[in-house]
Amino acid sequence: MEQFFNYDDLKDLYDIAIIGGGPAGLTAGIYAARDNLDTIILEKNFPGGQVGITEIIENYPGFPDGIMGGDLAEKMFLHARKFGVQVKNGICGKIEIDGKYKIIHLEHSVHKIKAKSIIFATGAKPLHLEVPGENKFLGRGISFCATCDGAFYKDKVVAVIGGGDSAVEEGNYLTKFAKKVYIVHRRDKLRAAKILQDRAFKNPKIEFIYNCVVKEVKGEEKINAITLHNRVEEKDFDLPVDGVFVFIGWTADTELLKGMVDMDDSGFIKTDEHMATKIPGIFAAGDNRLKELRQVVTAVADGAIAAKSAEKYIEENF
Amino acid sequence: MEQFFNYDDLKDLYDIAIIGGGPAGLTAGIYAARDNLDTIILEKNFPGGQVGITEIIENYPGFPDGIMGGDLAEKMFLHARKFGVQVKNGICGKIEIDGKYKIIHLEHSVHKIKAKSIIFATGAKPLHLEVPGENKFLGRGISFCATCDGAFYKDKVVAVIGGGDSAVEEGNYLTKFAKKVYIVHRRDKLRAAKILQDRAFKNPKIEFIYNCVVKEVKGEEKINAITLHNRVEEKDFDLPVDGVFVFIGWTADTELLKGMVDMDDSGFIKTDEHMATKIPGIFAAGDNRLKELRQVVTAVADGAIAAKSAEKYIEENF
Repeated sequence: MEQFFNYDDLKDLYDIAIIGGGPAGLTAGIYAARDNLDTIILEKNFPGGQVGITEIIENYPGFPDGIMGGDLAEKMFLHARKFGVQVKNGICGKIEIDGKYKIIHLEHSVHKIKAKSIIFATGAKPLHLEVPGENKFLGRGISFCATCDGAFYKDKVVAVIGGGDSAVEEGNYLTKFAKKVYIVHRRDKLRAAKILQDRAFKNPKIEFIYNCVVKEVKGEEKINAITLHNRVEEKDFDLPVDGVFVFIGWTADTELLKGMVDMDDSGFIKTDEHMATKIPGIFAAGDNRLKELRQVVTAVADGAIAAKSAEKYIEENF
Repeated sequence: MEQFFNYDDLKDLYDIAIIGGGPAGLTAGIYAARDNLDTIILEKNFPGGQVGITEIIENYPGFPDGIMGGDLAEKMFLHARKFGVQVKNGICGKIEIDGKYKIIHLEHSVHKIKAKSIIFATGAKPLHLEVPGENKFLGRGISFCATCDGAFYKDKVVAVIGGGDSAVEEGNYLTKFAKKVYIVHRRDKLRAAKILQDRAFKNPKIEFIYNCVVKEVKGEEKINAITLHNRVEEKDFDLPVDGVFVFIGWTADTELLKGMVDMDDSGFIKTDEHMATKIPGIFAAGDNRLKELRQVVTAVADGAIAAKSAEKYIEENF
């Protein structure tokens, strides 16, 4: 990964600059580089995106036994590198349109990346609870990633907030470590897929708390309880826990393009079926795009389509 | 694969019947069965579709060294089976709408499949040359699949017809066997991806013939030549060859739905972004759908989306 942190080999001009190195960005890289286009991926964290911090992925076709998220991320990273994609660590601070060209200004760096087209594949980030005590315990008891932090809760009691696929799946996963997992959901039934629900119902370490929302996260040095509000009975009560895992949704990581392209209220980018935004030469792919189903399979399809569309755009405009 | 040819365990009613067991159909199966839906896949040939007869697939993310088409097909088949999808060999003769239910009538069988929804993932099939001599030599010198038939042409001379990705990729592949490969294209330059072109240009066994179309396939017991017409010079000439591989395009395998759902002139099915056709409960996914990019990555995405859409349709209508 030496090249990852080294900007000495940046080229003066790229055909395609891809912002974000998750499945959508890496697949765009595979397709672009295989077609001999000069391609760079800029990733602010580590390649793989959300996949890299997912315990196991059961539904990416071709891996019948499932695959560890980190392993799939690495395979996709190596796959893109194999065809010659440059992958660099860095944060995009600003995107400037200079005639037909696009200039990416990097934060904490004098370097700029100039490209004929951009594929914006930055993914999405978790929604916070927005309640008192949450900020105080961020990273010290409040987590958005069971794979990252689950192991810290061996024989402890944790609450999972949410009722969708992530909440129930990660609730199951957390029983590997925790002695007790509460799944706290604001409605009277879960939204998660049936197979996930069935697994959770059978898991003796999991207890469900319905119709409740979090009002406060309490503790001195560490979390010792959350205050829940039962919306049906209109009563508050404290639930003693050592940690809180929040899975209540996502917002697109698209601040950079705000005001430039069309988005919905959560920041998800509106594109046509070719992944084109309203700015010629800027495409969006993956979880940051406004669409129904956010999965690895749909991210890789977006990435491939965006690369092919960018290739056409370049052929027609340069 | 015993179950594949045995209809004794057919259920009275399925949630989702998937017609076609390529990447789109198998992925729809993975997603549907993982959500505990009763799911059956009907495949008229062998699971994997076009993937199964592709030599190597370099651009399905997660396999950095590429993967043999047959291997990927088998992995996807096992993946679907793992979650409990029934996969049956059979040909769908007719689709009947019976109120909310869909009845699939099988050819050469008394069995019927009744389902709440159908995902139509039948793929597409190759276009023929439609010239004298072609039918005579179908399967005996005319081929649409280099992986199937290439090995029969060891040290022989073959012509590849076409100028797109498939023609140039398979032309390269055929040089493993043939001593000489002509790539005959009707235009003055290729449509194939640059990386494929570059490989072919470097391959000493390949010779390009531009601006030419096939007028006739000639021979007694075996093919001995094709008559080509040069469209620029307006002249005909005979090219001695032992075999002809045709890669001039595809048409969707959608006869069954003709007149029922919207299609384009080539039979590609028009859907919305949820893969819905205009008949409630009938969805289309994969290569048989009207779209720009037909690849494994887009097929698996279509399959996942179609399964989730069918699941919603069932929840709302049954």
